[in-house]
Amino acid sequence: MSTQKRIRDYGVKIGKLVTGYYNSITDVEGVTVGHVTLSDNDTQTGVTAILPHQGNIFREKLIASSHIINGFGKTMGTIQINELGTLESPIILTNTLSIGTAADALIGYMLEHNPEIGRTTGTINPVVCECNDMLLNDVRARNIRKEHVIKALENTSEEAKEGSVGAGTGMLCYSLKGGIGTSSRLMKMEHGTYTMGVLVLSNFGILSDLKVNGKAVGEELKDAILQSREEKDKGSVIVIVATDLPVSERQLNRILKRSVTGLSRTGSIITNGSGEVVIGFSTATKIPHDKTSSCISVPMIHDEDIDLAFRAIGEATEEAILNSLVTATHVVGRDGNERPAFKDLLKEYNIELT
Amino acid sequence: MSTQKRIRDYGVKIGKLVTGYYNSITDVEGVTVGHVTLSDNDTQTGVTAILPHQGNIFREKLIASSHIINGFGKTMGTIQINELGTLESPIILTNTLSIGTAADALIGYMLEHNPEIGRTTGTINPVVCECNDMLLNDVRARNIRKEHVIKALENTSEEAKEGSVGAGTGMLCYSLKGGIGTSSRLMKMEHGTYTMGVLVLSNFGILSDLKVNGKAVGEELKDAILQSREEKDKGSVIVIVATDLPVSERQLNRILKRSVTGLSRTGSIITNGSGEVVIGFSTATKIPHDKTSSCISVPMIHDEDIDLAFRAIGEATEEAILNSLVTATHVVGRDGNERPAFKDLLKEYNIELT
Amino acid sequence: MSTQKRIRDYGVKIGKLVTGYYNSITDVEGVTVGHVTLSDNDTQTGVTAILPHQGNIFREKLIASSHIINGFGKTMGTIQINELGTLESPIILTNTLSIGTAADALIGYMLEHNPEIGRTTGTINPVVCECNDMLLNDVRARNIRKEHVIKALENTSEEAKEGSVGAGTGMLCYSLKGGIGTSSRLMKMEHGTYTMGVLVLSNFGILSDLKVNGKAVGEELKDAILQSREEKDKGSVIVIVATDLPVSERQLNRILKRSVTGLSRTGSIITNGSGEVVIGFSTATKIPHDKTSSCISVPMIHDEDIDLAFRAIGEATEEAILNSLVTATHVVGRDGNERPAFKDLLKEYNIELT
Amino acid sequence: MSTQKRIRDYGVKIGKLVTGYYNSITDVEGVTVGHVTLSDNDTQTGVTAILPHQGNIFREKLIASSHIINGFGKTMGTIQINELGTLESPIILTNTLSIGTAADALIGYMLEHNPEIGRTTGTINPVVCECNDMLLNDVRARNIRKEHVIKALENTSEEAKEGSVGAGTGMLCYSLKGGIGTSSRLMKMEHGTYTMGVLVLSNFGILSDLKVNGKAVGEELKDAILQSREEKDKGSVIVIVATDLPVSERQLNRILKRSVTGLSRTGSIITNGSGEVVIGFSTATKIPHDKTSSCISVPMIHDEDIDLAFRAIGEATEEAILNSLVTATHVVGRDGNERPAFKDLLKEYNIELT
Repeated sequence: MSTQKRIRDYGVKIGKLVTGYYNSITDVEGVTVGHVTLSDNDTQTGVTAILPHQGNIFREKLIASSHIINGFGKTMGTIQINELGTLESPIILTNTLSIGTAADALIGYMLEHNPEIGRTTGTINPVVCECNDMLLNDVRARNIRKEHVIKALENTSEEAKEGSVGAGTGMLCYSLKGGIGTSSRLMKMEHGTYTMGVLVLSNFGILSDLKVNGKAVGEELKDAILQSREEKDKGSVIVIVATDLPVSERQLNRILKRSVTGLSRTGSIITNGSGEVVIGFSTATKIPHDKTSSCISVPMIHDEDIDLAFRAIGEATEEAILNSLVTATHVVGRDGNERPAFKDLLKEYNIELT
Repeated sequence: MSTQKRIRDYGVKIGKLVTGYYNSITDVEGVTVGHVTLSDNDTQTGVTAILPHQGNIFREKLIASSHIINGFGKTMGTIQINELGTLESPIILTNTLSIGTAADALIGYMLEHNPEIGRTTGTINPVVCECNDMLLNDVRARNIRKEHVIKALENTSEEAKEGSVGAGTGMLCYSLKGGIGTSSRLMKMEHGTYTMGVLVLSNFGILSDLKVNGKAVGEELKDAILQSREEKDKGSVIVIVATDLPVSERQLNRILKRSVTGLSRTGSIITNGSGEVVIGFSTATKIPHDKTSSCISVPMIHDEDIDLAFRAIGEATEEAILNSLVTATHVVGRDGNERPAFKDLLKEYNIELT
Repeated sequence: MSTQKRIRDYGVKIGKLVTGYYNSITDVEGVTVGHVTLSDNDTQTGVTAILPHQGNIFREKLIASSHIINGFGKTMGTIQINELGTLESPIILTNTLSIGTAADALIGYMLEHNPEIGRTTGTINPVVCECNDMLLNDVRARNIRKEHVIKALENTSEEAKEGSVGAGTGMLCYSLKGGIGTSSRLMKMEHGTYTMGVLVLSNFGILSDLKVNGKAVGEELKDAILQSREEKDKGSVIVIVATDLPVSERQLNRILKRSVTGLSRTGSIITNGSGEVVIGFSTATKIPHDKTSSCISVPMIHDEDIDLAFRAIGEATEEAILNSLVTATHVVGRDGNERPAFKDLLKEYNIELT
Repeated sequence: MSTQKRIRDYGVKIGKLVTGYYNSITDVEGVTVGHVTLSDNDTQTGVTAILPHQGNIFREKLIASSHIINGFGKTMGTIQINELGTLESPIILTNTLSIGTAADALIGYMLEHNPEIGRTTGTINPVVCECNDMLLNDVRARNIRKEHVIKALENTSEEAKEGSVGAGTGMLCYSLKGGIGTSSRLMKMEHGTYTMGVLVLSNFGILSDLKVNGKAVGEELKDAILQSREEKDKGSVIVIVATDLPVSERQLNRILKRSVTGLSRTGSIITNGSGEVVIGFSTATKIPHDKTSSCISVPMIHDEDIDLAFRAIGEATEEAILNSLVTATHVVGRDGNERPAFKDLLKEYNIELT
């Protein structure tokens, strides 16, 4: 991550709160991210895996929730997350038509690590999210293989790369190259300092809508490059949220809903074709898979304290999206289709972000 | 309650679980119920008040949830219950067109007991539920006055009356006289024995659909009384659920959703015009109104233990509905409209319930 | 279907409405069902495919909706169904751990029939539902292959088989053998006669809860066979609903919610571990994939007419579940685990259903 | 409206779409707005009434939907709106503790105009929204009387006033004086040109978060006025949406959800204490109260056309909020509490909005 120039390196400071050490979802203790990137001519796609903690997530589940901003998409796993309030698998991001393969691979991975599933205990709820990278990637070829998913799961680290990597390899954002971005915020409360981390897979928007910290950079850029035509937005954005804040499922859901404030401030109008899904978890409480003989005690903040979390997720989402944009590199893909890198255009047309 | 013949007194035993002491919502420690009944010619209506605990519910809120089975109705308060997961006022039941008056009265009552509302703290979320008693009651006259609401709130007890009392005075059920009914179940778990209490305001259904513990009593009765015409169901049912089970808002919501199993087993098809709303709370945790300096610790059962609560609410709802039916008395009301008492018809036509 | 003895053949008549010709989901014009059954020692599983109409469902979508009764499950496709209000793929049912494979197969099938997906138009939302057949089937082996899914899709007919077939091969119901069941009802309205069809994949419940048209057959049978132990319910039920009634997405959703009345009347308490999902569609309106130059006109019934549909779905769901039970055959599966056929026990213990 | 200086008069142009004639919710044919303002020392409150069309809204209902952004509030009527998809009463806005009185007044008004309610037809679903004006208004006094509500209903017009009028009299926004604001957008589609109108009752936010078309005016102003303390946001915002676009309830709901993009762009983080509710209706189809003998035909746009509506509502919401801010006048209220007018501060501190 250290070698990529991020939005703060352009002098853009989003919001009021302080970031975590990496300014990444991995600032939340225990969270790691892995990417497998397939970039070869017509194949511009990949897999991104997020481990919510470093133990056995099936045996020690985390309180979780999901929120659908726009349901044009086929993210798997949200039904059970919302019913049971827990996450019991890593989270996989990939391209839209590979969701079946990715789900099957994740199921296989979970079976291997948990031999009791399907024998002495029930089933496993895999969480797989997707965006559509069809412009740059031959999505019909469904080039994601199970081994790619396993490799992403087995090679995670705290140093989350951004831009045209993993599931972000072929994604677009505001008609430019998009992909993976991340950011974090610290939340100082009376009873401790907590971290809110966000990772996005950005694949939405049209250029003229893009705003950077309130500045209408998209319109400026559009005028500069004389691009007359804007495609219809058929994208998506996946927002993965990690926090160590002690929250109930209800509180977490309230927090997830606020990611839309950051998304909106980058200029999104949340178009029809853009599947926008938020999935989040808190590492503060581990819920054991097996029934306990006594009640579980779940620590939660008072709702009067929650505004800080609302502010944190909005800021981190906004910055993660901008990071995905500004770190992405120029990609030429399927049938020679291409999307320019935001950073290249900024240089070429002398556009200031502040 | 002791003087009313209830469904168990007819030999009908619903389900597998044991009831609480009163077989009433008041078996949940701290819960009390009060009725004000207006029964005079065209006026056949009233107010029922439920106190969730005997302290200051605004200062010490309870974890709460609501579930809409059918939203043809105007119950107030569910938006905030679902957002914040807490109940902060008593619950008032009354007739549909008096909901404004009842809300205003409940607000006044809360203001009186909490002088800081609207001054040093914000507002109060009153919970008011309603059914439509227009056949027997001159509902357009809106005869409920604020003093009726206050009186119901100030005269609650553990001995909840049933049938044609309080808000149930003018209600119908399965084309017969309906009204207030209640029931409870004990839930023995490893970590304690808990109580599930249900109180219903019944006002739904057509005679031929009525089933008593699986027996098609409604059809039998319909044939007996040669009643050829059945009105369209324009009723409602309100289900109030109290428990001392330690649950999160999510778990409580899952429990509330299961009340429909009991409702269905009495024969309901949940018609278009029947507003069916469930509101429930747990007395296991008190959430302080004021922000706490440390986290709140909320005890909750493991979800693997929750089936017992699912069974309990289904059984208690079914029995509460039957209790409302079998305790209701014959009422002649507006314009001479009348509805027979189930118990009178059972006797008259020699119909056995078992 | 003609050779299987169904619940009506035992003298049990559910509800008040008349059935369609087949008393099957296929009574709705254009709906066909196909099964692939894998039954060989430890492998007791399969695939069931439902074609919503006989044209190209991707080009001509149907108004659709879904309803989660209990979200312990991983059905795919509901997010987009609810957002866009349309179904654009056939529906596949299979075992829980094969959902990834089934989704991938269905995506492949849709790509083959629609070469424009991923090129000139976006993506496709596959609908795949699942239950857990782990007792009788080696679910960890994930024996479903893509060709099984394709075969089920390509061999559908109006004569839907029931019981231990297709996805129902290894499923349980009320501790007995369960599986596929179907039923239908006619709805006579002023403006036409319509059909409500239901197909269930039953895999839920414990024996002592089973009720047949109000009769506590489960308890009777449990006493008869001296079975002392009942397992925890870790099942599921999938309810697929087809109708030709002209409805909006909102109306269809209201209808789907009422399937729980039928489910409840068979005795279900909707346990924690039982994923219960309802997906439905109306064939009355076809929504074109491509943008239209003028508005679309959607015919819908007046909500005052909807009670008939509420009654129909409750009855058809109840009867479909009973049909799945009474047609299922004795299966010996994984590690010699077995589940008796309801019909065999009825005969053996001389139990009457009426 | 003509005499008030609005945000466009300051050179601020929000978004890309053209406004309607009045740039007001009343640009939607048939929609009128009325205010009753109570401004006298400790009493700074009022009522705003919106008539959805000029006929009998109970007899000819409109397709409607609601969306809860944050449910810290007690808006009445959303349960039935969402179940039946229709609006059947005018919409009343007032202060939070007067909601009971306002509901009762609106019920009375509807009864008077519809003598069949409670006699030959069922009930009426009144829609009443609220914000908390406790800083400037003696909200505990509940000074709203029924006659104020009736007067607002009977004195509506197309010339909607903005700022400190009606329900907006005592409201705050971004720590400044807020209140009523409105805006509209035209949507040119192949099959016609439609209007999206938004009216807000603004009462949320803290000064330092305020952004005007991306410019951080709030921070600038905060520095200028050396105001060191910001109160906790205990506000709310009500967003009323009118359109003549032909939409289904589902489509309308999708549109309402996008109002949050405009809200976010003014700087809101959607705090815990801020009840944020959106209610909208389409005048394109009238749904008759009485059952029809044939199906109803509802025209709806293709979802591929809906992005224009998404853009329109975001822009109109953003502009309506800014209009509420910039038109509001300085108010001194309860106990001498006061809130400055944004326009006065802009002048005093020479702050440019563009």
